[in-house]
Amino acid sequence: MDRILLGHGSGGSLMHDLIRQFLAPAFDLKDTGDSAILNLNPHRIAFTTDSYVVSPLFFPGGNIGELAVYGTINDLSVSGALPLFLTAGLIIEEGFPMDDLKRIISSMAEAARKAGVKIVAGDTKVVNRGKGDGIFINTAGVGLLYEGIDISARNISKGDLVIISGEIGNHGMAIMAERNGMSFDPPLKSDTAPLNDLVRSMFEATREIHFMRDPTRGGLATTLKEAAIESGLCIRIREEAIPVPPQVMGACELLGLDPLYIANEGILVAIVGRKDAEKVLMRMREHPLGRRSSIIGEVDDSPEGMVLLETSIGGKRMIEMLQGEQLPRIC
Amino acid sequence: MDRILLGHGSGGSLMHDLIRQFLAPAFDLKDTGDSAILNLNPHRIAFTTDSYVVSPLFFPGGNIGELAVYGTINDLSVSGALPLFLTAGLIIEEGFPMDDLKRIISSMAEAARKAGVKIVAGDTKVVNRGKGDGIFINTAGVGLLYEGIDISARNISKGDLVIISGEIGNHGMAIMAERNGMSFDPPLKSDTAPLNDLVRSMFEATREIHFMRDPTRGGLATTLKEAAIESGLCIRIREEAIPVPPQVMGACELLGLDPLYIANEGILVAIVGRKDAEKVLMRMREHPLGRRSSIIGEVDDSPEGMVLLETSIGGKRMIEMLQGEQLPRIC
Repeated sequence: MDRILLGHGSGGSLMHDLIRQFLAPAFDLKDTGDSAILNLNPHRIAFTTDSYVVSPLFFPGGNIGELAVYGTINDLSVSGALPLFLTAGLIIEEGFPMDDLKRIISSMAEAARKAGVKIVAGDTKVVNRGKGDGIFINTAGVGLLYEGIDISARNISKGDLVIISGEIGNHGMAIMAERNGMSFDPPLKSDTAPLNDLVRSMFEATREIHFMRDPTRGGLATTLKEAAIESGLCIRIREEAIPVPPQVMGACELLGLDPLYIANEGILVAIVGRKDAEKVLMRMREHPLGRRSSIIGEVDDSPEGMVLLETSIGGKRMIEMLQGEQLPRIC
Repeated sequence: MDRILLGHGSGGSLMHDLIRQFLAPAFDLKDTGDSAILNLNPHRIAFTTDSYVVSPLFFPGGNIGELAVYGTINDLSVSGALPLFLTAGLIIEEGFPMDDLKRIISSMAEAARKAGVKIVAGDTKVVNRGKGDGIFINTAGVGLLYEGIDISARNISKGDLVIISGEIGNHGMAIMAERNGMSFDPPLKSDTAPLNDLVRSMFEATREIHFMRDPTRGGLATTLKEAAIESGLCIRIREEAIPVPPQVMGACELLGLDPLYIANEGILVAIVGRKDAEKVLMRMREHPLGRRSSIIGEVDDSPEGMVLLETSIGGKRMIEMLQGEQLPRIC
């Protein structure tokens, strides 16, 4: 392949190949988790970055500004860190309406305030008309690792349970519906939300959270497949247990998409030691962002690196990473 | 003004207005320095971000990749920090040649290695053909503040001397010459370089460095005007003392530009306590990136907030910030 395809940005296998074969070796990146973990004696800090290129910029339930703030907060949170500081880098297209810029920046400020995180530095660049797409936003974030926490696929072991904190598919399908001029009743709305407080409450319940990730690009399927490959174990999930709202299901059927691959922005998936799973689940359900939490599966030792879905009618399906470009520019 | 203009990104007064009137209050940014300074007891860390949208991507003396790495290293350095970690966020246009991407990423890796800084996390997004411009790169960086160092325009006082570490105008004019298909003898080349080691050697000589900045967008003029406004003092500089290479002067004359406003990527300007200035200057001249260091002026107490240039023919000129969009997309 000698040119970049849209699918290289969609969070699936093309992107993984690009990162694993090229970016990670060039930069000597050790881990493919959501944040780098760094020692700054006596602290361990998490440091991460994400650029946001979502289209459209404003969508039901949010806009690119709050998405950019919550997205990086969530990357830090699921790495086991308390998010502290964000930077914001704006790349704006010449001619972009000042009012839209103000709305977006206000949303970022409000989102940071809500989550109790500070935006501490910013940068603004402008590109010529026709050389951008309204606005792109990068956020980078620094967080402080919780004591005694080690979130890594390496810590997953047989018997662990898989918990999801809410319904899947809302963010991605809200964007797709907006792009396609479709409407649903009840309406599809992005689930974009900051997960730092939910994560804090989970750590209060137990330190036995082995793996945690927010299943954004590539959806729940890709996230679990990554966990299976990195741990060398097998993740078995039950279709019936996975909460999919009816309007997401409806939109997916109309567009020929699979909710397991749809991006989410306000939920997390955790793989938790079996004996503490019920306790964590209870705590999650007490949290406004975790009311629909449920156990959707468990970890087995074989077949290695596989995710197996037990379907509602009792069949088994092998789950792979997202291929190609199902949903470009979803975040 | 109800739409974003190219000049909003050029580092001059339009951008300052945008940041001061809108971004800084929304995010409650305290300082307009190059990095945020944060307490992470017992450390003080610097945290900064910059996006790079330079056009063309490859130019004499460098490319967008090393520029993005050195730029953030330099922002941390002139804040008085030892740069430690960077993140890299890539926004790539669909259809971008894979070979160019590899060249750029290799340059980033090589630049980080040379500067002794680690790129610890990355992100890749792809936008549709015609919705970007090849590649945009964001880098964010974390550094550790040197002990006993406080770089701030508030610390400048009357009698301080102004030192520049090298010749001005090389980066900006190399880009402009490339865009305009002009060639010079000797050729114009970007001065992009990492300043962290030069800064380290300056701190070895003295802690009495009151202000430091790398004069990128907006050039030396805009940087000094910012220092004058923030300190409430007057900066007097002598035109004869400012090193401008003949090919930069020639290109500026051809294009009707003023070298004082041209972006630089491998030099810094420092305002230093008078009694230590000579010592710092000597140390800087021993460093490969500081051989052409010179004292170009001094600080006076009035007229407040002004930068006054004493011209070669003995006249005086008031220096203002860059207005409008002299050089869009220079970094």
